[in-house]
Amino acid sequence: MSDRVDVAVLGATGSVGQRFIQLLEGHPWFRVAEVVASERSAGRRYGEACDWRVSAGPPAEAADLRVQQFEEPIHSSVVFSALPGGIAGEIETRLAGEGKRVFTNARDTRMDPDVPLMIPEVNPDHVAVIHSQRRRRGWKDGFIVANPNCSTIHLVLALKPIWDAFGIEQAMVTTLQAASGAGYPGVPSMDLIDNVVPYIGGEEEKVESETRKLLGGYGDDGFRYAGLTVSAQCTRVPVRDGHTETVSLKLGRSASPEAVAEVLAAFRARPQELDLPSAPVHPIVVRAQPDRPQPILDRDVERGMASVVGRIRPCNIFDVRFVVLGHNTIRGAAGASILNAELLKQEGYLN
Amino acid sequence: MSDRVDVAVLGATGSVGQRFIQLLEGHPWFRVAEVVASERSAGRRYGEACDWRVSAGPPAEAADLRVQQFEEPIHSSVVFSALPGGIAGEIETRLAGEGKRVFTNARDTRMDPDVPLMIPEVNPDHVAVIHSQRRRRGWKDGFIVANPNCSTIHLVLALKPIWDAFGIEQAMVTTLQAASGAGYPGVPSMDLIDNVVPYIGGEEEKVESETRKLLGGYGDDGFRYAGLTVSAQCTRVPVRDGHTETVSLKLGRSASPEAVAEVLAAFRARPQELDLPSAPVHPIVVRAQPDRPQPILDRDVERGMASVVGRIRPCNIFDVRFVVLGHNTIRGAAGASILNAELLKQEGYLN
Amino acid sequence: MSDRVDVAVLGATGSVGQRFIQLLEGHPWFRVAEVVASERSAGRRYGEACDWRVSAGPPAEAADLRVQQFEEPIHSSVVFSALPGGIAGEIETRLAGEGKRVFTNARDTRMDPDVPLMIPEVNPDHVAVIHSQRRRRGWKDGFIVANPNCSTIHLVLALKPIWDAFGIEQAMVTTLQAASGAGYPGVPSMDLIDNVVPYIGGEEEKVESETRKLLGGYGDDGFRYAGLTVSAQCTRVPVRDGHTETVSLKLGRSASPEAVAEVLAAFRARPQELDLPSAPVHPIVVRAQPDRPQPILDRDVERGMASVVGRIRPCNIFDVRFVVLGHNTIRGAAGASILNAELLKQEGYLN
Amino acid sequence: MSDRVDVAVLGATGSVGQRFIQLLEGHPWFRVAEVVASERSAGRRYGEACDWRVSAGPPAEAADLRVQQFEEPIHSSVVFSALPGGIAGEIETRLAGEGKRVFTNARDTRMDPDVPLMIPEVNPDHVAVIHSQRRRRGWKDGFIVANPNCSTIHLVLALKPIWDAFGIEQAMVTTLQAASGAGYPGVPSMDLIDNVVPYIGGEEEKVESETRKLLGGYGDDGFRYAGLTVSAQCTRVPVRDGHTETVSLKLGRSASPEAVAEVLAAFRARPQELDLPSAPVHPIVVRAQPDRPQPILDRDVERGMASVVGRIRPCNIFDVRFVVLGHNTIRGAAGASILNAELLKQEGYLN
Repeated sequence: MSDRVDVAVLGATGSVGQRFIQLLEGHPWFRVAEVVASERSAGRRYGEACDWRVSAGPPAEAADLRVQQFEEPIHSSVVFSALPGGIAGEIETRLAGEGKRVFTNARDTRMDPDVPLMIPEVNPDHVAVIHSQRRRRGWKDGFIVANPNCSTIHLVLALKPIWDAFGIEQAMVTTLQAASGAGYPGVPSMDLIDNVVPYIGGEEEKVESETRKLLGGYGDDGFRYAGLTVSAQCTRVPVRDGHTETVSLKLGRSASPEAVAEVLAAFRARPQELDLPSAPVHPIVVRAQPDRPQPILDRDVERGMASVVGRIRPCNIFDVRFVVLGHNTIRGAAGASILNAELLKQEGYLN
Repeated sequence: MSDRVDVAVLGATGSVGQRFIQLLEGHPWFRVAEVVASERSAGRRYGEACDWRVSAGPPAEAADLRVQQFEEPIHSSVVFSALPGGIAGEIETRLAGEGKRVFTNARDTRMDPDVPLMIPEVNPDHVAVIHSQRRRRGWKDGFIVANPNCSTIHLVLALKPIWDAFGIEQAMVTTLQAASGAGYPGVPSMDLIDNVVPYIGGEEEKVESETRKLLGGYGDDGFRYAGLTVSAQCTRVPVRDGHTETVSLKLGRSASPEAVAEVLAAFRARPQELDLPSAPVHPIVVRAQPDRPQPILDRDVERGMASVVGRIRPCNIFDVRFVVLGHNTIRGAAGASILNAELLKQEGYLN
Repeated sequence: MSDRVDVAVLGATGSVGQRFIQLLEGHPWFRVAEVVASERSAGRRYGEACDWRVSAGPPAEAADLRVQQFEEPIHSSVVFSALPGGIAGEIETRLAGEGKRVFTNARDTRMDPDVPLMIPEVNPDHVAVIHSQRRRRGWKDGFIVANPNCSTIHLVLALKPIWDAFGIEQAMVTTLQAASGAGYPGVPSMDLIDNVVPYIGGEEEKVESETRKLLGGYGDDGFRYAGLTVSAQCTRVPVRDGHTETVSLKLGRSASPEAVAEVLAAFRARPQELDLPSAPVHPIVVRAQPDRPQPILDRDVERGMASVVGRIRPCNIFDVRFVVLGHNTIRGAAGASILNAELLKQEGYLN
Repeated sequence: MSDRVDVAVLGATGSVGQRFIQLLEGHPWFRVAEVVASERSAGRRYGEACDWRVSAGPPAEAADLRVQQFEEPIHSSVVFSALPGGIAGEIETRLAGEGKRVFTNARDTRMDPDVPLMIPEVNPDHVAVIHSQRRRRGWKDGFIVANPNCSTIHLVLALKPIWDAFGIEQAMVTTLQAASGAGYPGVPSMDLIDNVVPYIGGEEEKVESETRKLLGGYGDDGFRYAGLTVSAQCTRVPVRDGHTETVSLKLGRSASPEAVAEVLAAFRARPQELDLPSAPVHPIVVRAQPDRPQPILDRDVERGMASVVGRIRPCNIFDVRFVVLGHNTIRGAAGASILNAELLKQEGYLN
């Protein structure tokens, strides 16, 4: 463990920041050396500055770290960012310019033409854009790698094997998203006791655009967005963790539900080949029971790193429909960034 | 009030049965004269036999009624049925044969070729099938009129003005349904604390088929199903009352979201013309706020008899999408039957 | 209705402020003429400034009012204050000094030796302290009348008839409080999905001290606190509205549960004698069913203005125990202030 | 692992039965060899007969077992019973008569004068009653050992060190219990969405009587009940797992909250000395934060085997009050039985 890479976590006291700290505890390759947060927390022990909400208490090692401000110099070469959109872009860009390898969960740079928006199982080849990113921006060692929005990740994980096997022309999606996706304090309890909020600002646009970048190609001419259309309606439901999504797909060529189930269950990709520490053995778990997946039962499958798909059946209008569910702050956020970092380490980008 | 028509409520102790009793309290045209339930409750005061769950307690008058068994003769000429599907058909058919005017909430006869499946604002002309129903079955006074499934009602109310104005070819729907839709005890709390159940047995098929009967025509050759295709994915969420539905529509001819909002807000129909006692002034209420409709805020609009529509906007794939919400045990069940009975009374079918 | 008294509502956009607006709609004696809120809302239409959460939308008349700032002059002679504790005292004192009759829901002045802390059914005689309040503070027309904390109100309503009939030496109380008690946004949903928070800052102290003032006497020497001891443990539970409290009492002299039930059910007081518009017919409703009261079933009894008591039975340690429940933002807050104002109007204090 | 003792789980498909199966997976001393359930499940694979609700799916080994009926012979020498009260006593007595060592979670025999009602940290010496149990009933190898009700266990764990150090005369308790305590389907969701049910049949009596047996002594003359009085008010709240209890204690001799906190935090007992596999390192975890313990944060501490205590402070009426929380189906049910079995194995009773 002694040769682990030091990492800094930005926005470490927030909801996704806490998941970073939790998931990195005992990580074989990375060691949380620095926790960075806003002025309000700076200078205090992390264990005290942080209103820890993801388990009984923070890991002892992290709890003892002193919280740094964004202005202080960061020594770690790898930075995980749980900064809120709007603030993230500027800070992350500065850090990448200083040579940091930044893995961000924020929306700010996701759609930039020289930033790889990555899910290691989906588009590991997009990593190559880093060369052009450095060239264009004049960076030598640093870079920014983004992971998608929480709803997008589980949708696209489920789409990827279908996209490869049969093609997809249209995807109609409704999400039932968990409260933790809005952070803490996030959604008031008065809005989620006995209620649904059928709106999450900016979410539908993210799902609709990020999907096309993720399933698209990358070449000399940059990113080529995938030629599928996505329509998303996003809602918030009284669930702590775990986004549920109903999906209907118009395929490129027809396929039976059984054939779709088969390619989903058989799906393995680069993280599984490389046996990355955070990679799920089965990135997609297929349920045969008629009433699955369900958040309480399925969100923690594969330590929260899998997408769980069920109810695969024909669609009256399109070709196939199903339900996909996944943990939104693990595979949908902090775990996504960490898996990206593991991929890049293994591919030699952290040297 | 002295010339009110006596009515019997079948399945009066259940969840929908209680709504019938509640909504009929002080009704200007109908008086609950008989409450009918299973053997277990029979012979007891309704107020004691019934585990009343829809407010602090049952109306005094109904509470004092003695619960009758299904086998006992019914004196009322009008029967409201809250019987569960599977059991309902046989009992209701027998009663109609005995001359009762049966308004049923059960699924059993909804799709029968001689039973009107009615929403008074949508297809009041279907009532004419009663003549053929009586002829075919040899009934003189009795008949069966059905109302649709709770999810279907609010969907179709919202579709009707669009169907009339622009035509609809395809409707993709995801429902987020309330717990009360499953009755009492219904869904275990262990399934709805911090959870979503993405499956409701038989529900999707009902939404998909009933919609086509409702929007279709009726003529000498019987029902002509409407030529639109519906695809529904139905889920259960931790909400007491109020079904929320996301809808994407492929229209017959293009229309702007504004034009759609306009026809929805302007919608008035036969119950409004006749000023039926339970008719909402605005059968469809359109919300402009980006985060509406919501169950806690909108389910009781127009005393639970309206469908509330919001987020009307273009769809990336189809033409228009929106969210519709309505009270599932008022306009979606007991209130639907009562409005049907009011229409038929006013149209002379109860004489 | 033309001779209704104009009233101003302070903190009108907040959670309790909205209840004031809602309860005052169509009030026979008071008319909402002014809505006052923080700078952020000032100048806008109330209907737009306010994120209305207590029903589908604000009453039309109130919605059209322009929101005033705290600094602007208030014309109404009666002021209802839904200001947060800490801020309330100073503003309310200024307004009373300007001649306004202030009915406050805030904690700031409740325990002041010259402020009546009132529940009209409990201590209507405390109103006399207003004379000394005016004298001491040099006010001519204005005054401040406070109502207790939401948990205290329902506890003390239930204690009052027992106190009168049997005396009470000790009261051990645990509260299970609703989310709305913390206002909006208030408690984050992440704290109340699948969770209980066993702590509400300052709440226990309020219940313990306010009870003694309310049940105490008032005479020439000022308030004499009642000689009972209260111990309260306060928790927050996943409920929208309605505080539930378990209570165990050591009585002054022994009484059977039946005798306690009897004095509770028979309780009538000054507001009932005066037939005040907001007074419940039965200020205390007693339930015989073993599993009542429950928030969803009982919080709206008597339009939210009653305390509902059940499970009256012997205590192993003290004499009697029971469960009391009441609506926390109606009788527990806005309705409490309004009932105070009605009492004072009828007693001639508003002339 | 080859010399593990074969065990049978009775009522294996139910809510507590599933926890037994889950907790026994990979247990170093016990191996689930038989799963026993009602006729309805008998003959089927456990994985299919069981509607598994405590995680994504049952352990593979258990899933492959064939479910036996109660009438079939049991080969295992150790039996864990998750049978419902009312049914349990007869079956368990028969099995003990056949030589089985029965560890039961059911209420039926808990208060029997020759059945040890045990919490290994509290009254390990009560095990000696087994000799008299065998003698009286004519059993040679078999016996019945019971664990307390879920609410009692966490209360008494917290009381034990205080009892030993300071004595306790009176304990006033209010419980806020989780839905899982009622099994599956258990409490209808309509009763726990936006609601509290202030009643759990028989629960208060259990807490009040079991506590006195647990803290009492055992000698030649049998059990001597502890001379403290307990008064319990039990409520059900919308929480999946984890019972929260508010407690006020009149001590035998006075002690500061700090002194109480100290004896709680320092508490270690027989299971910790023996280092039993399921024993928590800290049977009582003390929280200093003002708003702890909370179900979501604290129920899984020490793998659900600890009681977590917070808010230790003076009581206005008695001496000290606090909040205790614990997992109701782990330490409060299945884990309690398993820890009992571990203790008895180590003490030589399973040979």
